Amino acid sequence: MSFSITLKVRDYECDLQGIVNNANYQHYLEHARHEFLCSKNVSFADLHQRGIDAVVARINMAFKTPLTSGDTFRCTVDVKKEGIKYVFDQNIYRAADDKLVVKATVETVCLVNGRLRECQELDEIFFLEMNTKIFGLPHHI
Amino acid sequence: MSFSITLKVRDYECDLQGIVNNANYQHYLEHARHEFLCSKNVSFADLHQRGIDAVVARINMAFKTPLTSGDTFRCTVDVKKEGIKYVFDQNIYRAADDKLVVKATVETVCLVNGRLRECQELDEIFFLEMNTKIFGLPHHI
Amino acid sequence: MSFSITLKVRDYECDLQGIVNNANYQHYLEHARHEFLCSKNVSFADLHQRGIDAVVARINMAFKTPLTSGDTFRCTVDVKKEGIKYVFDQNIYRAADDKLVVKATVETVCLVNGRLRECQELDEIFFLEMNTKIFGLPHHI
Amino acid sequence: MSFSITLKVRDYECDLQGIVNNANYQHYLEHARHEFLCSKNVSFADLHQRGIDAVVARINMAFKTPLTSGDTFRCTVDVKKEGIKYVFDQNIYRAADDKLVVKATVETVCLVNGRLRECQELDEIFFLEMNTKIFGLPHHI
Repeated sequence: MSFSITLKVRDYECDLQGIVNNANYQHYLEHARHEFLCSKNVSFADLHQRGIDAVVARINMAFKTPLTSGDTFRCTVDVKKEGIKYVFDQNIYRAADDKLVVKATVETVCLVNGRLRECQELDEIFFLEMNTKIFGLPHHI
Repeated sequence: MSFSITLKVRDYECDLQGIVNNANYQHYLEHARHEFLCSKNVSFADLHQRGIDAVVARINMAFKTPLTSGDTFRCTVDVKKEGIKYVFDQNIYRAADDKLVVKATVETVCLVNGRLRECQELDEIFFLEMNTKIFGLPHHI
Repeated sequence: MSFSITLKVRDYECDLQGIVNNANYQHYLEHARHEFLCSKNVSFADLHQRGIDAVVARINMAFKTPLTSGDTFRCTVDVKKEGIKYVFDQNIYRAADDKLVVKATVETVCLVNGRLRECQELDEIFFLEMNTKIFGLPHHI
Repeated sequence: MSFSITLKVRDYECDLQGIVNNANYQHYLEHARHEFLCSKNVSFADLHQRGIDAVVARINMAFKTPLTSGDTFRCTVDVKKEGIKYVFDQNIYRAADDKLVVKATVETVCLVNGRLRECQELDEIFFLEMNTKIFGLPHHI
């Protein structure tokens, strides 16, 4: 099952069209990914302090239904690995009717001390549990 | 007792100093006031649609302790009326230790169809309950 | 030649990684499109007042080089029509060395009084000049 | 004469009331202060890297006239010292008619390696020129 967080639109996130400004969906997606990390006991700020920066290399967002003042929504996070990249599939659903709001793919890479490279720490955090389910290994993450 | 909401810092709200950018506290305060309205079954967006705009005339904020990545905080709302103005006393407290983060006074006025004036609707919403407590009147707001 | 605007990074646009937060590039792209409209004497806000809303249906952004505090950058706008969509090709270049920062494709559609449809007004604004160059027609836009 | 910068409202800065959201004025004021530093060859980000953080202790803003889509405005910066504080008087004027938009007082203090203290570097940058004008000293800042 996907990780997800539920948030409510804040009025300042709406623009003069009276709907959530598009850039704010990118904020929601980012916050959901960071909360996903938190759920694994990893802090994005702490990673940065230790020289590990997860950065977005590419984002693809399809805007299906606008959110507006008063709306509550659910933002999901699924992650898989493709080569050196972590690819996040993320959707936003309006809570009232479960209607799809945004469908996004976010490709991120890791910079360790400024250099692009594999990040064993994140690999273990994201995928060890999954592997241990398959291989029956203990998982003290 | 004060109305309050509890929120968590989102990493994109932090700036290059690694702490919440000051302007975001103004966002938090605004969101708390609008949630206060919601708690009274009033929608800020709906008021705007009906030609009633509550606007901030003056804000005074003292920044006591910075919030940072991972912090949860409580933002309070108290309102009183002074002449034509609604004066909101609002504080932000860090949840972990109840330390004062921001102490703010926000003076707002009402524009009805663009003209400054008293707003009976908001008066009743904000203060009727209070009065009925004093005068023992029923309060079907 | 592409339409473009030149802007400078504002420090509050940088996040705790010390670089411009990704969502802000979406802001830059939007602002450049709206300035492109302005250069054609069209106001996005005025369109909205008249019931014409240009909305983003899909955005694809590749992040190549981060901008940081003090950087100046150029944001370009090119538009073509594909079916009912206006497709904007937009790039962001760092001014100091013309390095590619962001490469984006932004697909927008028009809602007229809330319904998806062709917008003759924008067609003429975006493409008449081009056609008149080809066909030698006068262009009093 | 005051230092000032001229900016144009970006549509995403407007909220569902169709006017610039109040928190954005705080962004404008901050950006003007940082550009004021730049004009003295000082970078806010560089100060932070060297352990010097100028932080806002108190802000007082009076909102006089709202800015809206399409508006250009001028944001001024004047600074004086009061005890350990730098007190900035900042105004925002609409360019079209020089009408006062926001009148602000921003009190900042310096943290050097996290501790509140005098900052000789900023003192010299802000006030040496002034003193040399009074006392006829050379001013190679």
